[in-house]
Amino acid sequence: MKNIAYDQVHITGGFWKAKQEMLLVTSRSVYERFAETYRFEAVNVKGWLARLMAEEARPANRPRTPHIFWDSDVAKWIEGTAYLIKIARAWDLSPDQKNELQALEQICDETIDTICENADENGYFNSHFQIMEALGEARRFTDRSQHELYCAGHLIEAALAYQNATGKDKLLRQMIRYADYIDRVFHIENSAVFETPGHPELELALVKLARFTGEEKYLALAKLFIDRHGDSSKDIPPYDVFNNRYNQDEMPLRKRTTADGHSVRAMYLLSGMIDVATHYQDASLMDACRRLYDNVVDHRMYITGGIGSTHLGEAFTIDYHLPSRTAYAETCAAIALAQVCGRMIGASPSVPLLSSYADTLERTMYNGILSGISLDGTGFFYENPLTIDLRFNDPNVSTKDKEYYPETTRRKVFSCSCCPPNVLRFYASLGDYLYSVDEDTLYIHQYMASETSLPSLKICQKTDYPLSGRISLTIRREDPAIRRIALRLPGWCERFELNLPYEQKNGYLYIGLPDSPSMPDETVIELDLDMPIRFISADPRVHDALGKVAVSRGPLIYALEGKDQPEIDIHRFLIDPSAGAGLGPVLPGFLLPSIEAEGVLPLPYMDRMEKVDDPGEDRDTKLYRSYDPGAFKKVRVRLIPYYAFANRGSSDLTVWIRVK
Amino acid sequence: MKNIAYDQVHITGGFWKAKQEMLLVTSRSVYERFAETYRFEAVNVKGWLARLMAEEARPANRPRTPHIFWDSDVAKWIEGTAYLIKIARAWDLSPDQKNELQALEQICDETIDTICENADENGYFNSHFQIMEALGEARRFTDRSQHELYCAGHLIEAALAYQNATGKDKLLRQMIRYADYIDRVFHIENSAVFETPGHPELELALVKLARFTGEEKYLALAKLFIDRHGDSSKDIPPYDVFNNRYNQDEMPLRKRTTADGHSVRAMYLLSGMIDVATHYQDASLMDACRRLYDNVVDHRMYITGGIGSTHLGEAFTIDYHLPSRTAYAETCAAIALAQVCGRMIGASPSVPLLSSYADTLERTMYNGILSGISLDGTGFFYENPLTIDLRFNDPNVSTKDKEYYPETTRRKVFSCSCCPPNVLRFYASLGDYLYSVDEDTLYIHQYMASETSLPSLKICQKTDYPLSGRISLTIRREDPAIRRIALRLPGWCERFELNLPYEQKNGYLYIGLPDSPSMPDETVIELDLDMPIRFISADPRVHDALGKVAVSRGPLIYALEGKDQPEIDIHRFLIDPSAGAGLGPVLPGFLLPSIEAEGVLPLPYMDRMEKVDDPGEDRDTKLYRSYDPGAFKKVRVRLIPYYAFANRGSSDLTVWIRVK
Repeated sequence: MKNIAYDQVHITGGFWKAKQEMLLVTSRSVYERFAETYRFEAVNVKGWLARLMAEEARPANRPRTPHIFWDSDVAKWIEGTAYLIKIARAWDLSPDQKNELQALEQICDETIDTICENADENGYFNSHFQIMEALGEARRFTDRSQHELYCAGHLIEAALAYQNATGKDKLLRQMIRYADYIDRVFHIENSAVFETPGHPELELALVKLARFTGEEKYLALAKLFIDRHGDSSKDIPPYDVFNNRYNQDEMPLRKRTTADGHSVRAMYLLSGMIDVATHYQDASLMDACRRLYDNVVDHRMYITGGIGSTHLGEAFTIDYHLPSRTAYAETCAAIALAQVCGRMIGASPSVPLLSSYADTLERTMYNGILSGISLDGTGFFYENPLTIDLRFNDPNVSTKDKEYYPETTRRKVFSCSCCPPNVLRFYASLGDYLYSVDEDTLYIHQYMASETSLPSLKICQKTDYPLSGRISLTIRREDPAIRRIALRLPGWCERFELNLPYEQKNGYLYIGLPDSPSMPDETVIELDLDMPIRFISADPRVHDALGKVAVSRGPLIYALEGKDQPEIDIHRFLIDPSAGAGLGPVLPGFLLPSIEAEGVLPLPYMDRMEKVDDPGEDRDTKLYRSYDPGAFKKVRVRLIPYYAFANRGSSDLTVWIRVK
Repeated sequence: MKNIAYDQVHITGGFWKAKQEMLLVTSRSVYERFAETYRFEAVNVKGWLARLMAEEARPANRPRTPHIFWDSDVAKWIEGTAYLIKIARAWDLSPDQKNELQALEQICDETIDTICENADENGYFNSHFQIMEALGEARRFTDRSQHELYCAGHLIEAALAYQNATGKDKLLRQMIRYADYIDRVFHIENSAVFETPGHPELELALVKLARFTGEEKYLALAKLFIDRHGDSSKDIPPYDVFNNRYNQDEMPLRKRTTADGHSVRAMYLLSGMIDVATHYQDASLMDACRRLYDNVVDHRMYITGGIGSTHLGEAFTIDYHLPSRTAYAETCAAIALAQVCGRMIGASPSVPLLSSYADTLERTMYNGILSGISLDGTGFFYENPLTIDLRFNDPNVSTKDKEYYPETTRRKVFSCSCCPPNVLRFYASLGDYLYSVDEDTLYIHQYMASETSLPSLKICQKTDYPLSGRISLTIRREDPAIRRIALRLPGWCERFELNLPYEQKNGYLYIGLPDSPSMPDETVIELDLDMPIRFISADPRVHDALGKVAVSRGPLIYALEGKDQPEIDIHRFLIDPSAGAGLGPVLPGFLLPSIEAEGVLPLPYMDRMEKVDDPGEDRDTKLYRSYDPGAFKKVRVRLIPYYAFANRGSSDLTVWIRVK
C-alpha cells in the first residue's frame, strides 16, 4: 500500500486549513526563539570556534559549546518550514504572507549555506562534535548517548523536505555525502565505538533517502541498525538511570513484546522497524512491530493518544498505568505514535482491523499532539497532563523530586526544545496521512476538506468535519485500474449513512466502482457519520479513571477546565451521562464548539464542610466527619476540546470526570 | 495540669496488656537486629578504634565508622526496655519471661558500662564523633546536620528512664555531666559552630532532666534553643534540598503558623516548645504551639493520625495534600504527634476543645503508630500508606525517582532504624497518657483496663475497650481536694450513657464528687460509649478521598485488604453505607474484630471489559469504550483494623473506599 504524499493533497478549508495557516506564525516564532537561544548561530561552526578562540565575552545564556541536539532543532525547523513553503503554494496568500514565506525560505537558504560551508570534506556535520573535536574535548562517533546520529537523521529529513519543496538540493547533496560517510564508518568499516544510533531517527531518514535516491545501501544500513539493536556488545548504555530499557537495548528487536523505556525513542525505532520490515518483507520483524503497536494502543495509551506515563526517562511504565495528573505524555511521543500509525497503514493491509491505525492517528492529531501547541501557534507543551489540580501545584508538593506534576502553561521555547519544530513539521505535512492506494483500491483514512490530484485520480473532499460528520467526496478516475474506494469508518462512529452500496470490512467501507469503458468517470460519495456526544469509560484496570468518564464527540476528547466554571471545584463535580448534553458556543480561537453538560455538586455537604473552617466549632479535627450522602445541586458545566486547554492561563483541568 | 506517669498506671488486661506483653519479643528482636548491625558494638568507642587501628578485616556490612545516629538507636532501645522492665514488675510473669527481662536488663547494664567507660572526662559521649575526632576526620560541635545533640537527647531520656525503672543511676550521672558540658559549650561559652540542635530532641530531654534534678539551668538551656531556633545566623543549613523549611529554620518559632518541613523534627521541636511555654508561662510561644497543632490536625493529618505527606525530606507539604498511595506518614512522625498531644493536654486546660488532644492521641495510638509494628512485634513499617495498589508496585512505576510508593511489607531493621525502638518506648510507656490531675479534677483521657494507685487516689478501670464502649471506673478517694472526675467523650462518639449526673464541657463529662467528711470514699462510674460502625468522609478539599469513605468503629480505622477478598479488585469495589455492616471474626493475632460490609461491583461492565482481551474483537483500542452504567453485583467484603494490614504478606489495601 502506498501513501499519497502531502504535496499532492491540498487541504482547502475548515479546521486544518486554519491550523496550517497558523503555522506561518509558528515557523517564525520557533525560528526567533531558536535564534535567540543560539541554535542557528551554532551551525556556523567556524564562526563559533573563532569567537571561542578570541575569548570573546559570552552572554550568560550562551553556552560555551553548542548543545548536542541543537542541530536537530534547526533541522526540524527547516523540514517543517519546507513543508509549509510547499503547501502554501496552493494558498491564496496576502502580499505580507508571500513576503513572510520568502523571508523564511531565505533563512533556510542561508542556514543551509552555513551548514554546507562548515561540513567536513567527508560530509560530516555536527556543530557540537566539530567544535568539541577542535577543542580536543571529544571525538565523533565515540559516545552513543550524544544524539550524534539522531541529528544526522533530522538533517537528512530536512534536506529531502527542502529539495522536495523548493527544488534546491544543496543540503541534500551535502547530506548524501554525510550518509555515505556514516555508511562507511558504521557499515563498511564498522569502526565507531558504538554500533547503532543511541536515539533512533537516522533509521527513518535513511529509508527516505533510499526511496528518493534509489540507493539500496541506505536501506541496508537502516536494516543493519535494526538488526544490531539490542544485540550489540559495543552499545553499553552510559548511565545507570538511563538504562538498557530506556535505550531499547534489552533484547534484539524481533524479540520485543512490550513498548518500554523512553517513549519517543521507542516509537522512532518502531517507525524504522516498520519501514525496514515493509521493504524487506521481513515477517518476524513485522510481527514484532504489530506486537509493539498493539501493546501501546491497547494497554499504554492515554485517551488523548498521549504515551509515556512517567517523566523519569520520559518513559513507558507498565500496562494500565496511566495516571492523569502526573501524565508525561510528551508531545513528541504522540507525534512519534502518529508516524508509527502512518507507516502501519502502509505496511499492514491484511490485518483484521486496518482502521485502528488511522483511528489512533486521528486520536493523536486532534488531541495529544494538538494540545502541544497553543491556539495562537506560538506556545508549546512538552508534557500534556489530563488533570491539573492547581491547588497542589506547589513547590512543597510537586517538583521533579516529589510528586511530579507537569507544567500548567505553555512555553515558547524549552532548553530541550524538540517539540515545537516537531509540531510544525507534523501539521505542515498532515496531508501525508489522508489517502493511500493498494493495488485496485483507494483508501480514504482521514476526513478533511481537500483537493488531491494524481495522474490517475482526482479526489475532491468537501466537509466541515469534525464540526459535523457529513463528508462529500467526488472521485474522478482517469485510470480504470482503481476499482474500489475504501472509506474509514472511525472507531468512535456507531451509526452512519452512505449513498452507495458498500461492503464493511477491516474497519473500512468498500465501494466498488463500475467497470467503466470511458475514462475519466466520476463517482460522488456522500458519507454521513453520526457524531453524538459520547461518554467514554476506561478499562477498569486503569485505576486512575475508575468511576469516571471522559466526554467526546467525533475524534475530539473534551475536558473540563476551571476557567469555564470559576465558581466550582471541577474535581468535586459529578457528571450525569443520562442528562442532556449539547453543543455550546465556539470560544474565541477554539475553532470547534464547546459542549455543555449536566451534573451535580454534593452541595449541602460542601457547605457544611466549608463552614467547618469556623474555628469555634467543636470537632477534634475539621478534616474528617460522619459520611452523609446529603443532597445534590444540579450544575451545568462547559467542556472544551482538550487541545484548547491552558489557552486562557493556568487552570484546573480534568479529562476524566467523576460520574454520578 | 499534671499527668499521672506510666509507672503508676498498670495496664491490667485487654488489648493494650496484650500489646505490652508483646514488647518483650519486640525488645529482644530490636536488640538482636541492632547488635547484628554493629550499633551496640559502636558504643565501645575504644574497641572500635583499636580494631580500626589494627586494620582488622571488616565484614562487608560493617561501616568503617559508626553512623551518626546509631547512639540514638541504642539509647531509644535502652529507654524502651527500661519502661518495659518497670511495667513488667506488675505482671504475672512466667519463669522464662522473668529470665528474659533479667537478660535484657543485663544488656542495658553492660551497654551503660561501655558508654560510661568510653565517655570523655567532660561527659561528652558520641560514638561517631569520638571516633572521627580520633581519626582526625571531623570535630564535635561543628556540623549541625550530624544529629549530635539529637543523640545526646535520647541518651539523657534513656538515662532518666533507666534510673526510674531500676534505680541504677550510672548512665544518668554520666548524662548529667554531658548535659553540663553541653550547657557550657552552647550556653555559657556559646563556642560551638552552630547554636541549636539540628534534629530537635535534646530540648525535650533537658526539660525532663530539669524536672528530675530540679536544676533550672537545663530548662533555661532548652528555652535558649527554642528562642534561638530560626533566629540564628550561625545555623545555616548544609544542604540544598534539606533546606530551611526542612530544618524548621524559616523564621523564629513564635512566628510560625504552619507545620512545615521534616515532620518528625517539626513535632519533636513542637514538643520542646510546649514544654518550655508551659514552664515559663510563655503566652506567645504557647499561641504558636496551638497554631501549629491546629494546622496539623485540621489540615495535614491522615485519618490514621499519620503525618508528613511526602518522602522527600520526610516532610509536610501543604493543607489538604494527603495522597493515600504515596503517603509517607512515618511511624516516628505519628509517635511525635502523640508526644505533642500528651504535652498539649497538660499545657492547655482552658482551650475550647481540650479533648481534641486525647482524641488525636487515641487516633495515632490505634492506627498510624500501631500499623508501624507487625502483630508478632518484630516487623516494622517506616512509612504507612493508606492505599496499596500492588499491580503498580513495579520498578517501572514506583521508585524513589518516579512515583514514590512506600514499601508493602514490614522489615525487621532499617538502615535508618529510628522507628522500631520508638514504637517500643512509646507503647511501653503508654500509661503516661491515661490520666492527669488539674487542681481539683481528675481527668480520664484514655480508656483501658488498668489499676492506678496514688497516695490521694486509686483508680480501677474495668473495660474491654475498644471491643466495646462499656467502661466501669471505681475511684477511691483518699484526699478530699479531688472534687471532680472528667471523663473524655471521644470525638467519634455520638451517643453515650453515664450513671451519674454530669456537666459536658471541653469534650469532657464532668462529674462532681460529694463533699465527703470521711475519707476514703468510693465512686463507681459506669460509662457506656455507643460504638457503631461509622462511615467517615474527608473534607472535600482532600481530593484523594473525594467520593470515598473510610470505615471506623470507636477509635479504630478499618481498611479493605486484598487478602480477605482475593477474587475481587478492591479498588473497583463500591461500598454501600446504607446496607448493613456488622462485626466479623477476630482474625488470628488481630485481637479486635473485623467488619463485614456490603457494596457492589460493576460486574457486567467488568465482564465485558475483561472479554475485550480477546484479540479477535474489533476495537481500535481495547482501553476505551462507550460508558455503560451497567448493572451491579452485590458483594460482601471484610475489613480489618488498619493497624493489622500487611501481616499476611503484601496485599492490595485501601482505607478510602469508593462509595456507591
